[in-house]
Amino acid sequence: MEYRIEKDTMGEVKVSSNKYWGAQTERSRNNFKIGPPASMPLDIVYGFAYLKKAAAFTNHELGVLEVEKRDLIAQVCDEILAGKHDDQFPLVIWQTGSGTQSNMNVNEVIANRAHELAGKKIGEGEKTIQPNDDVNKSQSSNDTFPTGMHIAAYKKIVETTIPGITQLRNTLDKKAKEFAKVVKIGRTHLMDATPLTLGQEVSGYVSQLDHGLRALNNTLDHLSEVALGGTAVGTGLNTPEGYDVLVAEYIAKFTGLPFKTAPNKFEALAAHDALVESHGALKQLAVALNKIANDIRMMASGPRSGIGEIIIPANEPGSSIMPGKVNPTQCEALTMVCAQVMGNDVAISVGGTQGHYELNVFKPMMAANLLQSAQLLGDACVSFDKHCAVGIEPNHSVIEQLLNNSLMLVTALNTKIGYYKAAEIANTAHKNGTTLKEEAINLGYVTAAQYDEWVKPEEMVGTLNK
Amino acid sequence: MEYRIEKDTMGEVKVSSNKYWGAQTERSRNNFKIGPPASMPLDIVYGFAYLKKAAAFTNHELGVLEVEKRDLIAQVCDEILAGKHDDQFPLVIWQTGSGTQSNMNVNEVIANRAHELAGKKIGEGEKTIQPNDDVNKSQSSNDTFPTGMHIAAYKKIVETTIPGITQLRNTLDKKAKEFAKVVKIGRTHLMDATPLTLGQEVSGYVSQLDHGLRALNNTLDHLSEVALGGTAVGTGLNTPEGYDVLVAEYIAKFTGLPFKTAPNKFEALAAHDALVESHGALKQLAVALNKIANDIRMMASGPRSGIGEIIIPANEPGSSIMPGKVNPTQCEALTMVCAQVMGNDVAISVGGTQGHYELNVFKPMMAANLLQSAQLLGDACVSFDKHCAVGIEPNHSVIEQLLNNSLMLVTALNTKIGYYKAAEIANTAHKNGTTLKEEAINLGYVTAAQYDEWVKPEEMVGTLNK
Amino acid sequence: MEYRIEKDTMGEVKVSSNKYWGAQTERSRNNFKIGPPASMPLDIVYGFAYLKKAAAFTNHELGVLEVEKRDLIAQVCDEILAGKHDDQFPLVIWQTGSGTQSNMNVNEVIANRAHELAGKKIGEGEKTIQPNDDVNKSQSSNDTFPTGMHIAAYKKIVETTIPGITQLRNTLDKKAKEFAKVVKIGRTHLMDATPLTLGQEVSGYVSQLDHGLRALNNTLDHLSEVALGGTAVGTGLNTPEGYDVLVAEYIAKFTGLPFKTAPNKFEALAAHDALVESHGALKQLAVALNKIANDIRMMASGPRSGIGEIIIPANEPGSSIMPGKVNPTQCEALTMVCAQVMGNDVAISVGGTQGHYELNVFKPMMAANLLQSAQLLGDACVSFDKHCAVGIEPNHSVIEQLLNNSLMLVTALNTKIGYYKAAEIANTAHKNGTTLKEEAINLGYVTAAQYDEWVKPEEMVGTLNK
Amino acid sequence: MEYRIEKDTMGEVKVSSNKYWGAQTERSRNNFKIGPPASMPLDIVYGFAYLKKAAAFTNHELGVLEVEKRDLIAQVCDEILAGKHDDQFPLVIWQTGSGTQSNMNVNEVIANRAHELAGKKIGEGEKTIQPNDDVNKSQSSNDTFPTGMHIAAYKKIVETTIPGITQLRNTLDKKAKEFAKVVKIGRTHLMDATPLTLGQEVSGYVSQLDHGLRALNNTLDHLSEVALGGTAVGTGLNTPEGYDVLVAEYIAKFTGLPFKTAPNKFEALAAHDALVESHGALKQLAVALNKIANDIRMMASGPRSGIGEIIIPANEPGSSIMPGKVNPTQCEALTMVCAQVMGNDVAISVGGTQGHYELNVFKPMMAANLLQSAQLLGDACVSFDKHCAVGIEPNHSVIEQLLNNSLMLVTALNTKIGYYKAAEIANTAHKNGTTLKEEAINLGYVTAAQYDEWVKPEEMVGTLNK
Repeated sequence: MEYRIEKDTMGEVKVSSNKYWGAQTERSRNNFKIGPPASMPLDIVYGFAYLKKAAAFTNHELGVLEVEKRDLIAQVCDEILAGKHDDQFPLVIWQTGSGTQSNMNVNEVIANRAHELAGKKIGEGEKTIQPNDDVNKSQSSNDTFPTGMHIAAYKKIVETTIPGITQLRNTLDKKAKEFAKVVKIGRTHLMDATPLTLGQEVSGYVSQLDHGLRALNNTLDHLSEVALGGTAVGTGLNTPEGYDVLVAEYIAKFTGLPFKTAPNKFEALAAHDALVESHGALKQLAVALNKIANDIRMMASGPRSGIGEIIIPANEPGSSIMPGKVNPTQCEALTMVCAQVMGNDVAISVGGTQGHYELNVFKPMMAANLLQSAQLLGDACVSFDKHCAVGIEPNHSVIEQLLNNSLMLVTALNTKIGYYKAAEIANTAHKNGTTLKEEAINLGYVTAAQYDEWVKPEEMVGTLNK
Repeated sequence: MEYRIEKDTMGEVKVSSNKYWGAQTERSRNNFKIGPPASMPLDIVYGFAYLKKAAAFTNHELGVLEVEKRDLIAQVCDEILAGKHDDQFPLVIWQTGSGTQSNMNVNEVIANRAHELAGKKIGEGEKTIQPNDDVNKSQSSNDTFPTGMHIAAYKKIVETTIPGITQLRNTLDKKAKEFAKVVKIGRTHLMDATPLTLGQEVSGYVSQLDHGLRALNNTLDHLSEVALGGTAVGTGLNTPEGYDVLVAEYIAKFTGLPFKTAPNKFEALAAHDALVESHGALKQLAVALNKIANDIRMMASGPRSGIGEIIIPANEPGSSIMPGKVNPTQCEALTMVCAQVMGNDVAISVGGTQGHYELNVFKPMMAANLLQSAQLLGDACVSFDKHCAVGIEPNHSVIEQLLNNSLMLVTALNTKIGYYKAAEIANTAHKNGTTLKEEAINLGYVTAAQYDEWVKPEEMVGTLNK
Repeated sequence: MEYRIEKDTMGEVKVSSNKYWGAQTERSRNNFKIGPPASMPLDIVYGFAYLKKAAAFTNHELGVLEVEKRDLIAQVCDEILAGKHDDQFPLVIWQTGSGTQSNMNVNEVIANRAHELAGKKIGEGEKTIQPNDDVNKSQSSNDTFPTGMHIAAYKKIVETTIPGITQLRNTLDKKAKEFAKVVKIGRTHLMDATPLTLGQEVSGYVSQLDHGLRALNNTLDHLSEVALGGTAVGTGLNTPEGYDVLVAEYIAKFTGLPFKTAPNKFEALAAHDALVESHGALKQLAVALNKIANDIRMMASGPRSGIGEIIIPANEPGSSIMPGKVNPTQCEALTMVCAQVMGNDVAISVGGTQGHYELNVFKPMMAANLLQSAQLLGDACVSFDKHCAVGIEPNHSVIEQLLNNSLMLVTALNTKIGYYKAAEIANTAHKNGTTLKEEAINLGYVTAAQYDEWVKPEEMVGTLNK
Repeated sequence: MEYRIEKDTMGEVKVSSNKYWGAQTERSRNNFKIGPPASMPLDIVYGFAYLKKAAAFTNHELGVLEVEKRDLIAQVCDEILAGKHDDQFPLVIWQTGSGTQSNMNVNEVIANRAHELAGKKIGEGEKTIQPNDDVNKSQSSNDTFPTGMHIAAYKKIVETTIPGITQLRNTLDKKAKEFAKVVKIGRTHLMDATPLTLGQEVSGYVSQLDHGLRALNNTLDHLSEVALGGTAVGTGLNTPEGYDVLVAEYIAKFTGLPFKTAPNKFEALAAHDALVESHGALKQLAVALNKIANDIRMMASGPRSGIGEIIIPANEPGSSIMPGKVNPTQCEALTMVCAQVMGNDVAISVGGTQGHYELNVFKPMMAANLLQSAQLLGDACVSFDKHCAVGIEPNHSVIEQLLNNSLMLVTALNTKIGYYKAAEIANTAHKNGTTLKEEAINLGYVTAAQYDEWVKPEEMVGTLNK
């Protein structure tokens, strides 16, 4: 492989000729061989591209960067955002906890690529654009990385998570309405209970997702605060006046999202409670989705020896040994995602507790976990929606059989003959393996006509939430 | 011990004569000997007292309960809320997951005590008030327990957690202003960095708590939804029309808090995402408080061989063997609480995932964990505030010594002589154990006068967040 | 209330006359009003009683404590262990993280009670026994608290947890043998699968518990290491030669358990990986028990509209509104305990990560969580065993009906007619709502005689693990 | 792109011509677009290669597979293990929770590649080797996937995790011995305490890692149990007699590791407590490593305003704005890994709780998390060792200055002049900012000669653990 020489304050380093990165990136590659290479999420790199461009525009507007440099930097940022340099970011999550090396990776790539765009050859002549003095001007790793991760997280949540969950929510809402008249047995403690409609049951899922989405939206304000302008310790040393507000406006403009400068930069560098907060809402959604997916697979269980009240789409041969079996695989994928999100929440919280003084150094880990959760939840909901939820159908014959066979309809008699007599009927039918009606009459508590008049499942499902 | 006979649908049970509870409570005591007795939080019992009274008023208003019964029930509820029957609730958290037995405990105590208030002797004659038919009228365990836990959780958060954290937040805010001119060395990666003021540092803590309190407040709307009126499976079977809305209004009236009926009762019984949501915010606050308490103990470390930049109050002899040593004990208590809250968050989330069909049966565990976290955070913040935060004082001599000795003031030269020369000065001083000024002059990069003019820590702390 | 004056190095403090504790305990009571009083587990106090007695004997044997003092100290320790002074330990978990104040509480109570035993009046004359110079001789909070918590944890695990789990394990093992011939449908992905016996299914639970108990036993060696002798920082300063080994021998003798001195005292003070390790095994058991309890409640679900393959004991009326319903309440209590243990594991792990230099200051929190988990798991298993597991019976008619109705017996034909033809039979029967036999014959792939010969559920359950 | 047609029991599917996989793999690719493609760890694929080869040999030996088929299968497995087909496994973790689709991916790739090795063209003629009937013979997804994940996990732990941690442990042990005479101030509660040697401090870390490695080794026995032979539900249906024992022997032979057949196959399919157990030990090690790395970065803090007792290697320019600053980046990478492992532990535990009946369907998620933790811990320890631990050196001048300046040496006087007088000396020196010696003499409690004789730090470090 061919190399060129790059240098930083520590000295010279060999870098592969076909790479744009410089000395500090190369050092990090060698010093942090932890897990697979390039694990630092590209979403964060793209977040950096937005902020580097915004910083260049702000620096120029405030009189500290020439227009030519601004435009070169912006051009490379646009290339990065277009996905043209994805292979130029080889670093791992498990580097310095401030993400300094990924900041430098971006700075170095921008500087060398800009040199090239300026018609020169990388490694020859003085750099047209300096990674530190130009690309990183008015910045520090300590404010760029949290800014990059807020941009990445916000975008992921509004572009992937919320649309994915909303898509599933809308399908379930449609199903809730479709199934509004499908009366079925209720179950509490996994035991037979009084009836409700399948639509009501599903409406509970919709309500969970609505609450979860609201909770997630509530966290976006904190996440929209960007640290940029705080530089090394939050004081904004070495930034021109007005820089922090203006650079946030440029970020908002370039991303089309309502980013704003963090009112308190000290928090913005030293703590990442905004990630803890947003991920808390993702975790709540995971809890909700786990309940929903679990219910659906239990209701779809069978085909002959389970509950079997609903039918879900068959997407693949389920088993390599058992012919004819179709499994709730989308439920399984989704609940695995939920477990992962619950684990990620702990990783993020642990990282969040351990900021020291002016800097939290668990940034890449926290950001990577949030991005993973946000991506997986969004994707899994779309997958679950498309390959499962849209195809859910009631298995009417099973639903009716289980309903009519149930002892719990006896509750309808509570207000007619009192709790103790109703209990006696149910207990007798249970003991004898008979129906409620038979025993109600046998015991002399009701007539057949009264039974039919009083025990109507469709009248037991209430007027609530219809 | 003297006994009387109580009975339920399963038969007769002996109950101690000096207790108001009945058969089902006694069965639960015997069937669930798990951990210490009476672990079910009294706050939940009080939540039940509010809702039983509200239900009695609603039932009367809607024509299904006599005024005498209403008033007897209400009178016992008021006694319970006055703390007169705290020893009548012997059950544990680790009972049925719907909390049915605690619901019955309350029903039985109210019925027997009401019998007594009606001038009769417990165990003699027909009960004046029936636990099931009267006290539990228009209710089910499945809607009362979640209502009771929402009341308890909401009250605890607004009466203990938020005031406690706010008290600490206000002290820190006052300190941030007091220390606005105290310039000190900054630290990132635990390493010396550019200066900031102690006030700025503390302002970051205030900002964390402000964000955390906002996040907690965001969750209260979900928590204000009460399940009552859903009865067994969410359909509201056996409730009079209008019951759910009215009973929530009575709860709001009796508690003085903005409770409202849950728009979707199916969610309200089958899922407790509201607890997951509120506890997520408590966990975020724990993350924040852990950072704050940890910073404070590190800054207070010493007295001779630590950081020693601040002085915290000495509240007790710290060690049984080392005389003269005073420890950051309030920081320790608070960070232990934070760790507990982080654990509780997992317990609650796990419980939240596992609802089945129409009922989540992890209710008592989820509620108890939330109540513990809310209580501990509130109490620990008050304790930390009173015995530590209010007394925090800068150790000016140490702060100045560490600041002036620092190499990081060199950053002030970045914009004057460039990054590489500044680095050279710092590196040389570091190697020789000398000061920046000496080496800056020796290397010929600045004059003494320039150094004094350019390197002014008080001008390096920025204009942000002052 | 009447008071006496106690003093420590900070000055005088008023203490209630009817309490044995002294100045430092009283200060802690006032300085740490966090959560309910006296939350520090008594098990830890008892652990202290063992170690204070062992220290007194060791100090005497090594010539640094008079025999009279030894015997007075030992006498009070025996009283504490007999439960006579349970109300003398009012402190909370949320105190200093070294547990210093609980160490002093024990020292003070022993000293004052010894004064009384020596025939004197508390608060009058010089103390017969000094809390620091005598009771705490050759000790520090930093080595006593970890010793006390190891004693408490070890005892709890071997006296409560292991016996409780073993009792349940033995019942399940007995059931596995009883049900060895009960052939039932298997379920994978919650879907019908090839048959197995109920005994085989239960044997899997036994195997989980056996592995879990083995894992727990593996952790006891680490937990048997006691820190005593390390004093303040692990160096053993101010202890007579041979003290650490001898005091561990006395602890072993007094407790009847194989405690030994920690080979490395620096770890023993600064890290509590032993608690992390033991609790990791408790968490594994919680994971196993959750699976088991969940299976049992699903198999017991019904009575008419669930799975209903087993019958579990009815211990209480399950619902206040639905007569005749009996719920899997022991499963619910147990799974709530499991969720709690999973949460406690995180609290303990977080505490374990945050030791600083020579001391971990999350001791009381870590110990309290482990003790809670160990107690709850042991108790919950006994409760589950006694009130559920021993009474589990197969519901033979349901089991047979579900088995014979199943499509999955078709797997028996795989090796006879090939995977694709077998799948075709199953699919056809599924579509037509018919039996396998009908379609197998209709499709011409087997004769009736062949079907009966080849498809024998009892021959499909294998020879494994019988 | 060019396609060929593949088919399974559900019908035809187009597959890219340059891929070996078949219909079921392609369906899974389309049905589970969740997160980045090919997230299923290759380690698991390699685990499958071992077991498929072992199954082929066993099937042949037991007379159910021709030698030609055995050898073709084995040849492809060897190619897979040589890394020649890494791009043939495009599936994600978030698929069916049994990993069925990855099992089929392996089956399909082996079958098609074998067809090619047999000199035929893929997609033409009958398959030389059938994916289900041959490659998967005597197997089910339900026993292959857990077998594959045990192989992968065991190998990763013994080949990466244990060697990595041991390498660091050995370096620390060497340092502990090197630093055995370096007396320094101890710190408890982050406050100055009695002295110890740097070697003693580091020996505590070694002891933590030794205990952690022992704990990890304790878990390997459970992990060495393989499920293969259990087939679909644990009964071993459709396997030749003796298959389970023999196939485990072949796996042991091919991997060189002590795998054995699981004594209870029902557990082995339905529960993955072995993963929970092993990961529990990984988590314990993460807790230990977090403590160690945190101590090291605190001790290395500075260079001027921190603790500064040790010097760690400078591997990179630490900051893009602050020249001359070198950060504890390896500590940061390692502690981020520790936080991740703590999160992964929760994900694995949650997955472990939720097995249903005969199958746990969180397999891929659980396995992937364990593999990630095992890889990251091993890698991070090697990185930390190589780039940090080996270069740790005491900063003797700082160590001596902090030691001699300390007030805590007063403890040496406890046994000479009593606790209260010693405390008075320390308090006075603290108040006056003077030295202990000055005040000890001023107060008249000791002579200068006595002070020098009694207060010798090097005699205060004890004889323990030297």
